[in-house]
Amino acid sequence: MFKPARHGEVGGVSLQRSQQQKPLRSHDRLNLCAEMSHKIVNLRVRDVRFPTSLEQHGSDAMVRSLCSSFSTRVHVRIHRHSHKNETFPPPLMSTLQHTDPDYSAAYVVLDTDSGLKGFGLTFTLGKGTEIVLCAVKALAGLVIGKSLQEIVSNFRGFYRLLTSDGQMRWLGPEKGVIHLATAAVLNAVWDLWARAEGKPLWKLLVDMDPKQIVSCIDFRYITDVLTEEEALDILVKAQEGKKQREDQMLKEGYPAYTTSCAWLGYSDQQLKQLCSDALKSGWTRFKVKVGADLEDDIRRCRLIRKMIGPSSTLMIDANQRWDVAEAISWVSRLAEVKPLWIEEPTSPDDILGHAAISKALAPLGIGVATGEQCHNRVMFKQFLQASALQFVQIDSCRLGSVNENLAVLLMAYKFQVPVCPHAGGVGLCELVQHLILFDYICVSADLRNRMCEYVDHLHEHFTSPVVIQDAHYMPPKDPGYSCEMLEESVNRHEYPEGDIWKQEIQK
Amino acid sequence: MFKPARHGEVGGVSLQRSQQQKPLRSHDRLNLCAEMSHKIVNLRVRDVRFPTSLEQHGSDAMVRSLCSSFSTRVHVRIHRHSHKNETFPPPLMSTLQHTDPDYSAAYVVLDTDSGLKGFGLTFTLGKGTEIVLCAVKALAGLVIGKSLQEIVSNFRGFYRLLTSDGQMRWLGPEKGVIHLATAAVLNAVWDLWARAEGKPLWKLLVDMDPKQIVSCIDFRYITDVLTEEEALDILVKAQEGKKQREDQMLKEGYPAYTTSCAWLGYSDQQLKQLCSDALKSGWTRFKVKVGADLEDDIRRCRLIRKMIGPSSTLMIDANQRWDVAEAISWVSRLAEVKPLWIEEPTSPDDILGHAAISKALAPLGIGVATGEQCHNRVMFKQFLQASALQFVQIDSCRLGSVNENLAVLLMAYKFQVPVCPHAGGVGLCELVQHLILFDYICVSADLRNRMCEYVDHLHEHFTSPVVIQDAHYMPPKDPGYSCEMLEESVNRHEYPEGDIWKQEIQK
Repeated sequence: MFKPARHGEVGGVSLQRSQQQKPLRSHDRLNLCAEMSHKIVNLRVRDVRFPTSLEQHGSDAMVRSLCSSFSTRVHVRIHRHSHKNETFPPPLMSTLQHTDPDYSAAYVVLDTDSGLKGFGLTFTLGKGTEIVLCAVKALAGLVIGKSLQEIVSNFRGFYRLLTSDGQMRWLGPEKGVIHLATAAVLNAVWDLWARAEGKPLWKLLVDMDPKQIVSCIDFRYITDVLTEEEALDILVKAQEGKKQREDQMLKEGYPAYTTSCAWLGYSDQQLKQLCSDALKSGWTRFKVKVGADLEDDIRRCRLIRKMIGPSSTLMIDANQRWDVAEAISWVSRLAEVKPLWIEEPTSPDDILGHAAISKALAPLGIGVATGEQCHNRVMFKQFLQASALQFVQIDSCRLGSVNENLAVLLMAYKFQVPVCPHAGGVGLCELVQHLILFDYICVSADLRNRMCEYVDHLHEHFTSPVVIQDAHYMPPKDPGYSCEMLEESVNRHEYPEGDIWKQEIQK
Repeated sequence: MFKPARHGEVGGVSLQRSQQQKPLRSHDRLNLCAEMSHKIVNLRVRDVRFPTSLEQHGSDAMVRSLCSSFSTRVHVRIHRHSHKNETFPPPLMSTLQHTDPDYSAAYVVLDTDSGLKGFGLTFTLGKGTEIVLCAVKALAGLVIGKSLQEIVSNFRGFYRLLTSDGQMRWLGPEKGVIHLATAAVLNAVWDLWARAEGKPLWKLLVDMDPKQIVSCIDFRYITDVLTEEEALDILVKAQEGKKQREDQMLKEGYPAYTTSCAWLGYSDQQLKQLCSDALKSGWTRFKVKVGADLEDDIRRCRLIRKMIGPSSTLMIDANQRWDVAEAISWVSRLAEVKPLWIEEPTSPDDILGHAAISKALAPLGIGVATGEQCHNRVMFKQFLQASALQFVQIDSCRLGSVNENLAVLLMAYKFQVPVCPHAGGVGLCELVQHLILFDYICVSADLRNRMCEYVDHLHEHFTSPVVIQDAHYMPPKDPGYSCEMLEESVNRHEYPEGDIWKQEIQK
């Protein structure tokens, strides 16, 4: 059911009074850091999985294509009852029957000697989360023993330490599992920093001196497009009007679009109902999944365009389903429904492919959007250099946390390409809203063609869930990076020991 | 000490008589497969590490740059004696003190119901190998229970199954840890196939029908550059002269170059001695590590150029040390020593950066080589499209095994860019020699500007180690993919339980 959250109410749970009324603090300096060093004494990481595949939320063209690729796929299916007799342990086998995603997270908690904690996560799709956990543990030795003060006083160095370890760098560099783990760890460090300052993360960034922001960024491999001096210059110039924009955001929020209406697994009846509900709640921007079957796509896109009318915005998302030529011909057939963008038309690694698609679709008025699987700043740099995208979709858990996202926001600004963050999954909305608020207030100062993805799933598991009001993200007020989960949710969904999974395995 | 292996003698160990005399079998069809299905009943994976960092083998500019990037690096160093009191287990902590690589492998053994085994590995640098093991285990469920016959009769589907699992694909796709794990598993499957056919892998490929070769390749995301039909056409045309080239290889071997002389950690005296020994053993192609200090590089390169004379070939390797502008200016200063190529001048992800460097260095007669960290065929495709490299350095353990390497060999042929494989580490020479033999015999039919890297390390741990004769790789004769390790070596070097590591930890 589509159920957009109202301000003060999220996922049916009323926000605590203290949270709504808590005033923002506007420190200009790292007061708390100066008072206390917050030495990190432990790092815990947990495998938290939500069985979303059971309801076909998150179903897209790519996961649906797998089944047709190997004729003997029956071997992939492991019967739930049989795993106890297998050589491999149950944790491996018991999710093998899912092809749709189980939204999951490698969830990190940092403990400090002051009692303050930092919470971070990286998003995953179920199977393989245990690999990310293993990678987080491998990074833990670089984090434990350091104080927050020590880290943030040389954050670029710390970022480099995590991403350039002489032995572990081979496993990336800065890509795949090891970079997802880096994101989880650094997200927790940023959360810790914001809590230490008593501010939500976006406000920590907004109040930060431009020089300090730049000092968090590793410019290695991007200086041919953005130097430290240029970055500083952009941030200093954007100081003008900053206060106004912050006030505007606090009042109006940041525009959002919804992906909750049109997953591939939904029936037409479901689509219509969800669309109708969303329109009533004030949504004007909609994204539809495409790519599995062209005729089906045409029918579904027409249906939605008819529902939302000509003035609303429609985007389409293929989740990497096509090769270059097929992307161009398929999307051309969908031009009649006037999509603003086609998202992930092909491999996320294919910069030149995206450039070719962009060029072919430009005359039809359709842009190309990508980024949720763009693995680091070096890739984003080239997508921008090659005019291979018209919408930059940053992700809070794929890139190396805030540090690397700052680099991408600044490069996007330099190329004057709008940033429209990827969100959804579990925790992604909670995290990325902070980044896009900072982008508007301190970098882009522009809302044209800009909006942040919103999916109405799993927010109820967070202590400070997103607040959506009239299809806008309202700025978070609680200190931190908004990705602390309710302890009970973590316990219930921990894989495979949590109650939810014990029940699934017993079925 | 430099000690090139002679034919029939590797690393001081004489080859077994049976191995030298075993004749090549030239089946045209999958006889053994037809006779027996070889159902895979178990997959074992082990963490095998060699403490190479103790001797500074493998030292390059990148691992050496880490130390300067974070002032408080002392925290990274964990005292060997203290780990028992830490929260984290010894496997994590005990290698943290190394910055130079410990050549390692995630080593896979497939057991079948026929008793035949398949051996595969992916190469790593020490720390983090346990993460790759975890990923291999996550893939195991897709392999166990399938027969070799079932896999190879739809190898493209099986490749897609491993790389496109609906949930695990998020962790890549086709990059980083999950793709290294895929390589290890598929290398073992190819080894099993070659053993089932009673042939060394290169010979299995050489004897294979072009249609069957093409059926092993996943063309997804590369059809804008190479279609299945084009690939088939290339292979069919190269059938001419195949027998001659095979005979030539059996007689002369495939040309090699050596990287054993000039690691950054070696003294000038060591450099001279190694160079002198190598020249005596017939080596004419040498690679030098550069990138840590320009004046030092100039001195060392001059020294080596003087030693080897003007007619020998010199290559330089920066291991991703620079940004684009710095790469161009640094390498321009080294032009006087006439290097054939500069290898890995910048980020392995930076296609457009490599293109800019290629363009700038072309007038100096210096090419750009890269590939050992080029993570999949989509990236290689673009490097070729953008004229971003003049030498393709395939890797047997980074790409998705033989399947993906076949795609890259064929694309390189289409662009007429020579392939010069990356090797060294542990097992890489053993594996990649098969691929480059196939490339010459069945694809390129060309030896100009082509050679395969050779490093004189750790061959003694393999049951069928490489055979180097007069600076040429002599075609392997034993059935399989040459990466079976001696059981005793695996036991001694298994991390952290093996004797070698127990001793290290006790020191």
